[in-house]
Amino acid sequence: MLYIGIDVGGSSIKGGLVNEDGTLLYKTSKPIADKKDADSLVQLMVELCNNILDYTETDISDIIWIGCGIPGPCDKKQGIIISTTNLGFENFNLSEALKEHFDTQIFIGNDASCAALGECTSGATKNTSSSVILTLGTGIGAGIILNNLIYSGFNDIAGELGHTVIKVGGKQCNCGKRGCFETYASASALVEMTQELAKDGNAKILELCNNNIDDIDGRTIFEAVRQGDAGAKTTLDEYIEYLGTGVVNIINTFQPEMLVIGGGLSNEGDDLLNPLREYVMKNEFCSKVCRTKIVRAKLGNDAGIIGAAMLGMR
Amino acid sequence: MLYIGIDVGGSSIKGGLVNEDGTLLYKTSKPIADKKDADSLVQLMVELCNNILDYTETDISDIIWIGCGIPGPCDKKQGIIISTTNLGFENFNLSEALKEHFDTQIFIGNDASCAALGECTSGATKNTSSSVILTLGTGIGAGIILNNLIYSGFNDIAGELGHTVIKVGGKQCNCGKRGCFETYASASALVEMTQELAKDGNAKILELCNNNIDDIDGRTIFEAVRQGDAGAKTTLDEYIEYLGTGVVNIINTFQPEMLVIGGGLSNEGDDLLNPLREYVMKNEFCSKVCRTKIVRAKLGNDAGIIGAAMLGMR
Repeated sequence: MLYIGIDVGGSSIKGGLVNEDGTLLYKTSKPIADKKDADSLVQLMVELCNNILDYTETDISDIIWIGCGIPGPCDKKQGIIISTTNLGFENFNLSEALKEHFDTQIFIGNDASCAALGECTSGATKNTSSSVILTLGTGIGAGIILNNLIYSGFNDIAGELGHTVIKVGGKQCNCGKRGCFETYASASALVEMTQELAKDGNAKILELCNNNIDDIDGRTIFEAVRQGDAGAKTTLDEYIEYLGTGVVNIINTFQPEMLVIGGGLSNEGDDLLNPLREYVMKNEFCSKVCRTKIVRAKLGNDAGIIGAAMLGMR
Repeated sequence: MLYIGIDVGGSSIKGGLVNEDGTLLYKTSKPIADKKDADSLVQLMVELCNNILDYTETDISDIIWIGCGIPGPCDKKQGIIISTTNLGFENFNLSEALKEHFDTQIFIGNDASCAALGECTSGATKNTSSSVILTLGTGIGAGIILNNLIYSGFNDIAGELGHTVIKVGGKQCNCGKRGCFETYASASALVEMTQELAKDGNAKILELCNNNIDDIDGRTIFEAVRQGDAGAKTTLDEYIEYLGTGVVNIINTFQPEMLVIGGGLSNEGDDLLNPLREYVMKNEFCSKVCRTKIVRAKLGNDAGIIGAAMLGMR
């Protein structure tokens, strides 16, 4: 059984051929150029699908369905993209548009939910029935799996965990509110904290970025801590408190079997996860029962493609 | 079909006979005296059940099951109370203990979840499949219904929404953490804010409590606002921001069909709910889809009894 999964991002569209086990058999991508209107984007998706079919010598009649992960709220039942922040989709019926080109079923869903479904199909959360994945990037993407299904609420837009407030009256968020989880705990937030440390004259950070604070990335502070810098440790501890606060909130809310950390920062492995686990253990509401396991995402960027391909399955 | 529901509280045990529609046919209660050890409490529950059977002239063979709502984490499958804060239950198998007295099935569950299930069976959320109920009291109790079922996570202790943090480093909470939702938005928190206002010399509040700040309760500030006091309005707005922050977090997380406000404060009706709805409308993540309805609980204290009686149903 073969499926096509498409992951629509801000700067590129990725897609692949996936089998029923959630194995990615072939993948490819197309950069999104200047034209970001709905018709141009659909054209790009059609080309991507045709490339996949051509390269893998597969006929569209062998594709059970095409699933699409979208960076914005969707009406899953009707196949409509309600809105996107940086792309030209606004109340757009993607399902109908793609059906004009391909004679197969079309499913759409939120991209972060697709990543959670991908990990749950063939990644970190395989064999668990409930999990939450947090992708730490520019913001914080979140996908929720309950009873082996994507949880998206009665109106398909649940799971905006990056925009739950952890500090009333705190830092301004792009969403208009103040104090959102992602303004404190995204990878971008950590980079900003590291840059502040450099501006305050931390010698180790300045050495690691060759005195160019624009070269600081999510890894910089971890490297400084590994090299024994005390100031960097203090800043990383502060970041862990923010990340841990949001993670404890999620665990106290959902008590999922697993909480998965994805995004570039997760490459730091236990240097990120161990202090996070320690913070969570100290701050969870109840310690007398089986606890949520905190693990690293396994599939990287493939999770979104695989999960999109699995959208019709659950 | 007849069921017995028991709602175990900190100071009394309430119980009643309930039919399959969730109608409470008879209710009674027993105060919890000094003896709060598990055996004394079980004895009290047995007496309560016998009183219900005697008064309603019902034989135990006509009772399909007995359900118990417990103020603490439970292992539902095994019928074990894991712990309680003010009562003597600690790793106690309540199911076995009650079966020694009654030849019927026993179900146990969290008391806040029972309240949510009660409202969902015959109260405010009847005919909805997803809802969250917040009971504003000394703390904030929370019950979550998803797909018509109590949601309690993989370890039965999910839904501790009162202990999600809305202000990192904020006010000390009884749970050991700082900045929990309930330290800012419980009825007790509102009373404290009103008392502060009185201490600062607000004439209207002092008039309403006859200069005795211990007489201030949850209604005082609403009465002051109704009488046009500007200082009281500012304080109530601040409280609404805290309550609204937690409510927006819950909506952005779950997008339930309904969010229900219960507890004594909910008696203020639209004087509480309208400013809350206004805050939520301004701060929800997405305004372009169908929104969660914010409503008042209907069943009051009966919700816990009715929900407990329904525990075996779902």
